[in-house]
Amino acid sequence: MTQTWLIVGIVSGFISVGVALAIYFWVVRQDPGSERARQVAGWIRDGAASYLKRLYTVLALVAVVLAFVIAIVFSFNLNQLGTGSVDIAPSNGLTMAAAFIFGAVCSAVAGYMGMTVAVQANVRSAVAVSDTLNKGFRVAFYAGSVMGLAMVGLAVIGMSVIFLITGNPEVVLGFSFGASTLALLAKAGGGIYTKTADIAADLVGKVEVGIPEDDPRNPAVVADNVGDNVGDVAGMGADIFDSYVASTVAAMLLGAAMAGPDSLKYTVFPLILCTLGIYASLIGIQFVRVGKNGKPGAALNFGTIFTCVLFAAMVIVLVLAGGYDLSVLWSTLIGLSTGVVIGFTTEFFTSDEYKPVQETARVSSSGAAITIITGFSYGLLSIIPSVIGIVIATLVSYFISEASGVISGVYGIGISAVGMLAVSGMIVSADAYGPIVDNARGIAEMAGMDHEVIERADVLDSAGNTAKAITKGFSISAAALTVLALFAAYATVIEARGLTLNISLRSPLVVAGVFLGAMTPPIFSALAMLSVTKGAFGMIEEIRRQFREEPGILAGTVIPDYNRCVSLAADGALTSLILPAFLAVGFPLLIGFVLGPDALGGFLGGSIFTGVIFALLMANAGGLWDNAKKFIEGGAFGGVGSDAHKASVVGDTVGDPFKDTAGPSLNTLITVMVLVSSLFAPIIAAFHLFL
Amino acid sequence: MTQTWLIVGIVSGFISVGVALAIYFWVVRQDPGSERARQVAGWIRDGAASYLKRLYTVLALVAVVLAFVIAIVFSFNLNQLGTGSVDIAPSNGLTMAAAFIFGAVCSAVAGYMGMTVAVQANVRSAVAVSDTLNKGFRVAFYAGSVMGLAMVGLAVIGMSVIFLITGNPEVVLGFSFGASTLALLAKAGGGIYTKTADIAADLVGKVEVGIPEDDPRNPAVVADNVGDNVGDVAGMGADIFDSYVASTVAAMLLGAAMAGPDSLKYTVFPLILCTLGIYASLIGIQFVRVGKNGKPGAALNFGTIFTCVLFAAMVIVLVLAGGYDLSVLWSTLIGLSTGVVIGFTTEFFTSDEYKPVQETARVSSSGAAITIITGFSYGLLSIIPSVIGIVIATLVSYFISEASGVISGVYGIGISAVGMLAVSGMIVSADAYGPIVDNARGIAEMAGMDHEVIERADVLDSAGNTAKAITKGFSISAAALTVLALFAAYATVIEARGLTLNISLRSPLVVAGVFLGAMTPPIFSALAMLSVTKGAFGMIEEIRRQFREEPGILAGTVIPDYNRCVSLAADGALTSLILPAFLAVGFPLLIGFVLGPDALGGFLGGSIFTGVIFALLMANAGGLWDNAKKFIEGGAFGGVGSDAHKASVVGDTVGDPFKDTAGPSLNTLITVMVLVSSLFAPIIAAFHLFL
Repeated sequence: MTQTWLIVGIVSGFISVGVALAIYFWVVRQDPGSERARQVAGWIRDGAASYLKRLYTVLALVAVVLAFVIAIVFSFNLNQLGTGSVDIAPSNGLTMAAAFIFGAVCSAVAGYMGMTVAVQANVRSAVAVSDTLNKGFRVAFYAGSVMGLAMVGLAVIGMSVIFLITGNPEVVLGFSFGASTLALLAKAGGGIYTKTADIAADLVGKVEVGIPEDDPRNPAVVADNVGDNVGDVAGMGADIFDSYVASTVAAMLLGAAMAGPDSLKYTVFPLILCTLGIYASLIGIQFVRVGKNGKPGAALNFGTIFTCVLFAAMVIVLVLAGGYDLSVLWSTLIGLSTGVVIGFTTEFFTSDEYKPVQETARVSSSGAAITIITGFSYGLLSIIPSVIGIVIATLVSYFISEASGVISGVYGIGISAVGMLAVSGMIVSADAYGPIVDNARGIAEMAGMDHEVIERADVLDSAGNTAKAITKGFSISAAALTVLALFAAYATVIEARGLTLNISLRSPLVVAGVFLGAMTPPIFSALAMLSVTKGAFGMIEEIRRQFREEPGILAGTVIPDYNRCVSLAADGALTSLILPAFLAVGFPLLIGFVLGPDALGGFLGGSIFTGVIFALLMANAGGLWDNAKKFIEGGAFGGVGSDAHKASVVGDTVGDPFKDTAGPSLNTLITVMVLVSSLFAPIIAAFHLFL
Repeated sequence: MTQTWLIVGIVSGFISVGVALAIYFWVVRQDPGSERARQVAGWIRDGAASYLKRLYTVLALVAVVLAFVIAIVFSFNLNQLGTGSVDIAPSNGLTMAAAFIFGAVCSAVAGYMGMTVAVQANVRSAVAVSDTLNKGFRVAFYAGSVMGLAMVGLAVIGMSVIFLITGNPEVVLGFSFGASTLALLAKAGGGIYTKTADIAADLVGKVEVGIPEDDPRNPAVVADNVGDNVGDVAGMGADIFDSYVASTVAAMLLGAAMAGPDSLKYTVFPLILCTLGIYASLIGIQFVRVGKNGKPGAALNFGTIFTCVLFAAMVIVLVLAGGYDLSVLWSTLIGLSTGVVIGFTTEFFTSDEYKPVQETARVSSSGAAITIITGFSYGLLSIIPSVIGIVIATLVSYFISEASGVISGVYGIGISAVGMLAVSGMIVSADAYGPIVDNARGIAEMAGMDHEVIERADVLDSAGNTAKAITKGFSISAAALTVLALFAAYATVIEARGLTLNISLRSPLVVAGVFLGAMTPPIFSALAMLSVTKGAFGMIEEIRRQFREEPGILAGTVIPDYNRCVSLAADGALTSLILPAFLAVGFPLLIGFVLGPDALGGFLGGSIFTGVIFALLMANAGGLWDNAKKFIEGGAFGGVGSDAHKASVVGDTVGDPFKDTAGPSLNTLITVMVLVSSLFAPIIAAFHLFL
């Protein structure tokens, strides 16, 4: 029975990837528009390809080195570590390394597909929107779904295949570590890239020279548009991919740790949830439609809700028919509903229909400092609903599961995380739509399309922003539940080696670990943001140089050297990754080997707490400032050109690296830290200085 | 022997207060200057008196209500709670309530003395500096020492008297709770007051009307100058007072919890350290001198280092002659040196001699957004040295003490906190100097003194800023060690009732507690900062109204209605305290009574972790922006009026509520939360919903 489910999972994964490919070819067949539009789109496509080539070269190098380390370390029989005689089993090492590489490749392929379709879809969406709003929406949304479907499909294929072959969830952990490491580098690198280009383009273009946004005379305009795809499509996809896989693995590990005859059944259950989620998303995507005068934002929200309801119905049938304990149903539903509730309450803090954005816009008339203080304060307050949601989901799923007498409480937490993430296919589709329409708008501007077309593209764009804010709240909360489950899995892995793990806050080593862990997300954020300003300064020099040395650029007679800006941003972003990558992988290992597994447990806990808080703060404050600016640009408090507008532009620029560079990488950072700790837990348990 | 030491403590406390009074009268005898200067100083003095009157009325009300609750609750024999029959012992309740009131009164008196001398000293320092720099420095520094000496004296008197009478450190906990509750309200209220006035005065005065800072035509100028005293003198004093008392009580409780014949000896030891610290400060203060062309900053630093060395020597003699275990010596020295090291490394991030401030100033030429991003990022990085210092101090003092076999590890942590804070007399003196010279500069400006005098006052002022930054790093780190010791004391109090406290991060209730605790400091910060902007908006309206309705004000022929601005700021600040006060006192009790003592333990842990991180971030980022602005005003990157300067002003304004409102209240917030939890622990242990 288990085997059947695994094969069903693999088949469903291939169906999902197949549909993604079919949609991809449908998108490519759409009208690519006038020669001018195609030329502009071509610049972006080439820039994206050039960045991806560099990125994947770096990633391949990192992956190979880490795989080599893993292959060696896991060639020892870890259960014998510390006993004096250790057998060597190279096949274990190779299996783990292969799983790691497999995870990295799946993540990379999903990101690559998402990017490729996005840079094809942007111009086609712009052309389609010049026909009707609805057509433009369809091209953009279906293109976004390529990423969503490819991602969940590849993840389910990967996890099912590995478990089918090895029967050992710890090997799936290797797959997850591969996916997350790649996600972290792609996300952080992409985040630095996109904001380097964005800030530099704005500061020289809009502020110094006074040309509009997305003006083709700006040498950084292509890098800026490439950045939207790099950071928001590939990065966000990799981010959710990594939570999706990690939550499933955590639940599998916790299922395997339960005693009793049903252990295997519950180990595979998370994979079955993912499989059902694929079908729910495949169906839900068909229901995302905009009527003649419909609102794109409402259509996206309807699709999300519909998918969730469908998924819930499927799970009810599965649990009742499959003879699972009812508590897993509750855990799934709690996770799912918490995800939705948190997503929508996040909107309160980032949508211009509510007080936080409006108030921030209003006070902007008193200057940028007040904009910053107010937005930052609301960003801090925006932590509340998500944290309370996470706490409730954790407690309810734990105690319901514990009370069942069948499954463990921590398994329940794991299942609630999987329940939240199972509909990721739909969530990512709605999210990837955002950067595509943003780019479509940019291309419409650069290709000199009608004013009316640009206005329609604006409507599509603003719907994308709301979907994006919801996804961010959703992805951070899901990541929090995921790392809590992974954290429990870490304890399981340690105790499977016969050690007891004491992570009481009364132990000074644990408190030391928590403090060190708690400062890691802020440090990571700082490094990423300083990389952005440093990179932006380099690019500002380059833009000024081009304007100075070739006056024809500003006159509009000479095409600027877009490629140099693309390269500059790429090089800056990729070299900036060294320190953050060390923090993510090296710092937990250092803590573990020096201060021991208890302190490492505290460290992981500390990083989770501040990681979640800073991620929420940065994502929401950034979204709030962005929308406060747009609210003013919509005519409020003096509109474009007013003092309030100038102040809101400062807020928006501060928010850029908050919401697009530092904030979204933090989920992945904490996931990678827990994963690397769990993977190396057997070795740390055997060798450490303290205790 | 114990009794003798307690009496020595009381006598030493009176000596300290006596010296403070003597210095006070010396300051008052100094030349108060021309009639104009006296008039200006009179406005500030009256404004301060008016604010203090309102503040203390509110505080008295809060204290009476809380004392009433305490008197009732502690009239039950807490050891019998939950056993079915509970004796009533009203004298216990009255004793505890009296200790609480005593703590509140001591804290209030110290703050009042500090404020009173500060508003007398500012004008006298301005007059003295018109003679020589040295004379101005002496008046300001000695005035500052009134606060420092009064504070440590009153604290030692209070704690010694209570312990002499009751012999029970849990009653001293009541004293500490009184001091901390008052400190929190004084600190948060003062922080909101000072920045409300500051921001409103700047935005209308400097930006809208274009009159210089500290111009007497500005109706908010007096409120602004009063604010410096309210927030920085009384607030900072209350803050350190509260850590000073809390660390001593925590160490006493942990000493009393140790078994063995020496328990009493080690219970009193923290008080003896405080007594020695008084003498070290009294002597150290005499050595703070500025030569003819000496630097005030160097003089302050020399005084601090000298006091620390002297104190260390005294402790060595005490430990060797008194037959204490050597481990307490090490713990004291570790705490002391960590305090100094953290203080000075903080300077790296906030002084204009190092990269962070210079780099932030440099990038300011690209606009305010980059100033904010860069400063905020360095603020995040500034967490590192302090956290590492705290971790090292915690681990070393714990393991050295644990290894001694004589004292417990947590007692060692408590002693390291006391060691850090024992020299508070000197630290507070150096710190209170800052706002006095800041005000002296303001008075010099308002009273129309010579340009040369103002320049000299500037020199005094900039030394004050460095001292202030060091004190902040010091006070936050000391508070962190204090709350860690208090946290251990909380566990002791719970377990004294025969319960076991399980605060493992593997318990979902504890994790829930940590998450909820971790979000409390950010929420508190947000509420305080939103109060500032809200208050500032109200005051901006008032200033505009005065300018509009009485044109004589701007012409300089009519004196504006300073008092209305003072009242507005005071009312705004005091009504804003309701929600933060509930968070501090009510939220931990709610968690405790609903989720139980384990979750409350997690809650306290979580609040400590993010409390320390946010306090460091906000204090240091704020200090950094302030000095980046001053660095540019000193002529760098275009100087006053340049684009870089405008951007740096935005950074400075954002930093104002960071460093002077939210940041410094966070220490006190977490102290109050741990204290209220420890005090009510016996009741929570008996009554709670969960577990």
